[in-house]
Amino acid sequence: MPPAPLPTQLDQLCAQLGTLCDTVSTALRRASVALLENRERLATQVICDYRGVQAMRAEAEELATDALLFHQPVAGDLRAVISSIRAAGDIERMGVLARHVAEVAACGRGLPVEVRADLERMGRLAVGLGLKAADVVRTRNVLLAAELEADDDAMDELHRRMFSVLLAPGWSHGVPAAVDVTLLARYYERFADHAVTVAHAIVYAVTGHEPGAIPI
Amino acid sequence: MPPAPLPTQLDQLCAQLGTLCDTVSTALRRASVALLENRERLATQVICDYRGVQAMRAEAEELATDALLFHQPVAGDLRAVISSIRAAGDIERMGVLARHVAEVAACGRGLPVEVRADLERMGRLAVGLGLKAADVVRTRNVLLAAELEADDDAMDELHRRMFSVLLAPGWSHGVPAAVDVTLLARYYERFADHAVTVAHAIVYAVTGHEPGAIPI
Repeated sequence: MPPAPLPTQLDQLCAQLGTLCDTVSTALRRASVALLENRERLATQVICDYRGVQAMRAEAEELATDALLFHQPVAGDLRAVISSIRAAGDIERMGVLARHVAEVAACGRGLPVEVRADLERMGRLAVGLGLKAADVVRTRNVLLAAELEADDDAMDELHRRMFSVLLAPGWSHGVPAAVDVTLLARYYERFADHAVTVAHAIVYAVTGHEPGAIPI
Repeated sequence: MPPAPLPTQLDQLCAQLGTLCDTVSTALRRASVALLENRERLATQVICDYRGVQAMRAEAEELATDALLFHQPVAGDLRAVISSIRAAGDIERMGVLARHVAEVAACGRGLPVEVRADLERMGRLAVGLGLKAADVVRTRNVLLAAELEADDDAMDELHRRMFSVLLAPGWSHGVPAAVDVTLLARYYERFADHAVTVAHAIVYAVTGHEPGAIPI
């Protein structure tokens, strides 16, 4: 069978990356539910599902390799393939971070009441960023990519607030809970950051410039 | 001027990635010295030097793009270019983690005595892993890549031990120091992990298999 034409292969590649991005966002949503509602079985399921993410990333890289091998793309098409390889790595990493949240949830230690609401917000923001990044990947909409920056600023603000709660003299939950919260906050913040990087990779693919170098 | 032949471009790409890997390892070594010896000016310098890492990564990606554009490589050569794009992302991330260690050092809060020795060991191991990864990138030595796994196991062991110290009832340094140590331990562990991923990318480039799928 002859290889599919380049535009078809590029569409398949975008679709695969979009699905991968949806999958890791759903994993983070489920991990967050497991964390907030102490559902250890759900947490274990998210941990197990991670293998599927690895397989999907490998598939995306195979599509990218085929596009390079069969069509020797140039200019914008070449940028699109290179950006996909970069983005696939970031999206897999988002999957690892979702698994890390699930791993904390699986320990079933529960969350101090002062940080529950903010962690829930961080989870919602991160999942939202992941789903927006999926849309950017699928639609190559550069303007939507700019929207992610504002959400990421909100995430950074929540991250800072979390530390001020942790480090306040009134913190009464001891070091173990502080360690859990420190890591959870970092997982959410990193997930959001990778989502923004994925969107940036698409902006680069479409425009040929890294965001920040062009006014979007 | 005609483009350089493919083998020359691939050599340049390996050299560039090797230099990048050396640079981020040196950055982590200096950040660790700044942390252990409370040298805030050195920490600030590491933070500033990070811009150079970003520029070097962009250069590596340009070399990879040129190789694809001018030579349409296939088989092992194509794998080498794709692996380089993956590895460049991981090495830049190692640079970010070195900067994070420097950021903690720049705060000048000092380290609790119980964790100094282990953090120093983690730093040494991480720098060593970074330099070994640089050698793997330059020499494409698959057997050396396997050596990194053992060092990474030692790092994981130190990481676990650090948490047992933090969570022991005898911890007397309060939550702020615990938060610092939690993050520092994670930065070192992640740096080491990325170094292993870089070596894996090279194994994939040379053998066509992900490590673990082949007995090395």
